[in-house]
Amino acid sequence: MKVSVGIDIGGTNTVWGLINEQGQVQLEGSIQTKDYLEPSDFVAKLALKIKDALAQNPKFELIGMGIGAPNGNYFNGTIEYAPNLIWEGIIPLQKMFQAHFNLPVWVTNDANAAAIGEMLFGAAQGMKDFVVVTLGTGLGSGFVVNSELIYGHDGFAGELGHTIVERNGRTCGCSRKGCLETYASATGIVRTAKERLTNYKGKSLLQEQEHISSRVIAECAHQGDALALEIFDYTAEQLGFSLANTVAISSPEAIILFGGLANAGALIIDPTQRYMEQYMLNIFQNKVKLLLSTVPEHQAAILGAGALAWKNVNGAL
Amino acid sequence: MKVSVGIDIGGTNTVWGLINEQGQVQLEGSIQTKDYLEPSDFVAKLALKIKDALAQNPKFELIGMGIGAPNGNYFNGTIEYAPNLIWEGIIPLQKMFQAHFNLPVWVTNDANAAAIGEMLFGAAQGMKDFVVVTLGTGLGSGFVVNSELIYGHDGFAGELGHTIVERNGRTCGCSRKGCLETYASATGIVRTAKERLTNYKGKSLLQEQEHISSRVIAECAHQGDALALEIFDYTAEQLGFSLANTVAISSPEAIILFGGLANAGALIIDPTQRYMEQYMLNIFQNKVKLLLSTVPEHQAAILGAGALAWKNVNGAL
Repeated sequence: MKVSVGIDIGGTNTVWGLINEQGQVQLEGSIQTKDYLEPSDFVAKLALKIKDALAQNPKFELIGMGIGAPNGNYFNGTIEYAPNLIWEGIIPLQKMFQAHFNLPVWVTNDANAAAIGEMLFGAAQGMKDFVVVTLGTGLGSGFVVNSELIYGHDGFAGELGHTIVERNGRTCGCSRKGCLETYASATGIVRTAKERLTNYKGKSLLQEQEHISSRVIAECAHQGDALALEIFDYTAEQLGFSLANTVAISSPEAIILFGGLANAGALIIDPTQRYMEQYMLNIFQNKVKLLLSTVPEHQAAILGAGALAWKNVNGAL
Repeated sequence: MKVSVGIDIGGTNTVWGLINEQGQVQLEGSIQTKDYLEPSDFVAKLALKIKDALAQNPKFELIGMGIGAPNGNYFNGTIEYAPNLIWEGIIPLQKMFQAHFNLPVWVTNDANAAAIGEMLFGAAQGMKDFVVVTLGTGLGSGFVVNSELIYGHDGFAGELGHTIVERNGRTCGCSRKGCLETYASATGIVRTAKERLTNYKGKSLLQEQEHISSRVIAECAHQGDALALEIFDYTAEQLGFSLANTVAISSPEAIILFGGLANAGALIIDPTQRYMEQYMLNIFQNKVKLLLSTVPEHQAAILGAGALAWKNVNGAL
């Protein structure tokens, strides 16, 4: 059976899997990223694990390797200055893996890998123009135009999370102010909740929570808590506003939401769609679908990385 | 000599020309768009003029026809609901011209045609990822990614002028508020000037002008007029802010400015570049060139339309 290797490198954990052409995970494993001070040791260990698995399962034939990583650069096959990894500077991942495997290897960032995963195996199947927005700790995005990812001239395109929606707004990890991800992400909605709770005169279920997370806010909203609903509404307005501006640029058929905050489902989708339509230029109104990812969340990262290899091997689909 | 026909349809005038592969206009002419109540009469007359010219100049061999028009749709080969033309609804321009010429015909909007003109014959030669921004009555834009225009799923992508930069800002012709083109365009800078003049307590050369235009504001700024310089600074801040957000999405190698307001040269380029860098995510800083168009302004529209035909005939360059 032909499979690609999909590898998702995170700050703590790295997960890998063998993915067949139908997007089924045939086998998976993981290692602790942060245990390896040297990227070369990390790559050697991971290569050994994959080779062991293949030796025990001779039916698999590798077609290529796709890697999703923070600050992954598609053009250079590198990780470049990733703030969430312990490895500093530029890591030539593609070359390092190719020293262990006689295979084509592609690298991109997590959100771009997620976009290719949706295109091959998820909600964007059959679409040529769409955007995937990942609402996790930050906000990542992958833009697909005419079936190809937008990498930009330097490989770093698709930073929707760092478009500014409020000049002089919230301070962002990037050191600027008002970036979309400070409002519309699992972290952003918690910031909104904490801000609102400080001055809230009414009663809210949120006041009884020990720990405020996007899941907790969603649970309170599900129970009809007015403050929690207001927090979702505000988050959705920032996201919908930003998506309307995005549509004016790339006019996608659909925008697909994924990740922690997207798990709130209709609580986030419905008001976001409403605000998006409200802020959108008339020629785009009622045309752009806002969808939830259909890739299983716990496998999405390796499916996306594996899809990257399948897409490149098979060419434009 | 092989030439394409480039046609630029405007509300008042339509200009056409024969363009060789080097981007030289070999012959040109024009007719009054608004004289023709029926688009079919317009197309018949224009076709006649072009055929006459060809009969008198047998050395020209046509390779195809490119048309730039307001609300031109590349996928459909149509003009769709153009507010500035007297023809209502959907005009199947491609089919109509093909009834007169046995040639491939392509249609797109003016800003997209301008982008292809810059790619083949202007400041974007050799670039694969860039954006052209036309600063005329409105603000148009054409996004090129990996040597291809972004048309979006419906053919209407690239409406940077209708991204919102100020929620609850200036009323736009599109009926929404705060669109970039209400600030950054030849019309937008005049609105800024009129607003500022109303409350201005100091002395300004602008107070002595009978008619305020973007050119007049530029002339006053060139003479060191403080208010005129302030008006350029504000315009540049809105434009630079918006371009920084744009860069985060498509990461172009360059952004090329064209049209009435771009003629102010350094007066608009320098502060726009400064604000763009100030609002830009660090990974993009000091990488993106902000350039002036190098296509001759009086021929740019037909060169862009002619380039559309050359690009399609020659394929990806």
